[in-house]
Amino acid sequence: MSKIYVVGIGPGGREYMTPQAVRAIGDSDAVVGYTVYVKLIEELTDGKEVVSTAMRGEVERAGIALDLALGGKTVSFVSSGDAGVYGMAGLMREVAEDHPEIEVVTVPGITAAMSGAAVLGAPLIHDFAVISLSDLLTPWDLIEKRIEAAAEADFVICIYNPKSHKRRDHLDRAVDLIMKHRSADTPSGYVKNIGREGQERKILRLSELRENDDIDMFTTVIVGNSQTRVINGELVTPRGYRYDGEAGK
Amino acid sequence: MSKIYVVGIGPGGREYMTPQAVRAIGDSDAVVGYTVYVKLIEELTDGKEVVSTAMRGEVERAGIALDLALGGKTVSFVSSGDAGVYGMAGLMREVAEDHPEIEVVTVPGITAAMSGAAVLGAPLIHDFAVISLSDLLTPWDLIEKRIEAAAEADFVICIYNPKSHKRRDHLDRAVDLIMKHRSADTPSGYVKNIGREGQERKILRLSELRENDDIDMFTTVIVGNSQTRVINGELVTPRGYRYDGEAGK
Repeated sequence: MSKIYVVGIGPGGREYMTPQAVRAIGDSDAVVGYTVYVKLIEELTDGKEVVSTAMRGEVERAGIALDLALGGKTVSFVSSGDAGVYGMAGLMREVAEDHPEIEVVTVPGITAAMSGAAVLGAPLIHDFAVISLSDLLTPWDLIEKRIEAAAEADFVICIYNPKSHKRRDHLDRAVDLIMKHRSADTPSGYVKNIGREGQERKILRLSELRENDDIDMFTTVIVGNSQTRVINGELVTPRGYRYDGEAGK
Repeated sequence: MSKIYVVGIGPGGREYMTPQAVRAIGDSDAVVGYTVYVKLIEELTDGKEVVSTAMRGEVERAGIALDLALGGKTVSFVSSGDAGVYGMAGLMREVAEDHPEIEVVTVPGITAAMSGAAVLGAPLIHDFAVISLSDLLTPWDLIEKRIEAAAEADFVICIYNPKSHKRRDHLDRAVDLIMKHRSADTPSGYVKNIGREGQERKILRLSELRENDDIDMFTTVIVGNSQTRVINGELVTPRGYRYDGEAGK
């Protein structure tokens, strides 16, 4: 039986990639993925059939992976971050639905919520919601509904795709909705180019995320909950341990 | 300047642990953690000072890590999953707040939401909320509010700590709240002992999570959104790509 691994390679650098992901690629005859991601794992693909597609869409790329598997090959279909979070692990199974003889295996990776949170300190220590502001595949009304629900119930909110080429005001509108339920001073932060050359982080107040030209479509944004604090320049959401300030003294 | 790495070691097996985590432990003079987790990384701690504490609480453990760092040592404070998701990365910074000279670094890992989702297929492909049902440190009212908000706004919901020793009905109450807004037939699933000996998964309907004695406190539960489907025995949440069923044919 042929197998397709849908592999999350993490934010970029090899140091974030799990041994399981390295092994899946090693086991594969063919590697399929967006050119940028395939390039990040170049040293693992020697001697393999590599199909890197810059110009084609996601559905077509999944179709290429399926065709290779139907031809008897073991395939790694790679995406950045975690293939299971806004990644290709779902679409691959939809495309392969009529071929139950092909085993599809998700190999998890470090998604931007986790790697971004680590760069900012520890903002995801309590309940959180992950929301993409991209309205390419999701109606904007539903995105607004989710933002407001998450804000009202005091979730830490992690935002993917805060801006798009066409729409620069998505994040501003999200921030306005969150501020209906949360202080404008809520400690928040963002990270650009996580785990790659040129990584940048900034910790700031919720209202300062508005009209912020430094934030682009490749930025991950985290808005704290009502308990989130800045400790020594880092974003920290307490879990609520009864800490009396005496430890370590 | 002394450094404390708060290291997420992933679900258990070494194959989920990133090279960054392995290097942080390698760089450390001392390793601190709950006995079970320290045992999982035994082969990495040779020749290091190891403080594994089965009996002490989280605050005391963080205090031990701080004391070692104040004594000039580089320390790895390990937790399972991602240290930044319900993990020690927050508490460590709270405990070290008065010592800005100690650098605290979060090393992210694969958290149960990601590793559990991978085992079930691809349920987290769209917006999701992560909620812990443990009311040890969080008022139950707030937990209920978050569950209902997430259910109403059609988030995929990932549940940590679905049951506790004292309270066996937390998950039942959560499911009842979700069913106010979502079909009893919503495809859902759970995973036990993720990435460890005895890993088990089950895909079932939302209502079948009620009064389910197979689910214990170490189980991760995922409830699909209104679009989640079962494809070839796996849980899949579509992202919404306009897929015409023609790829790969």
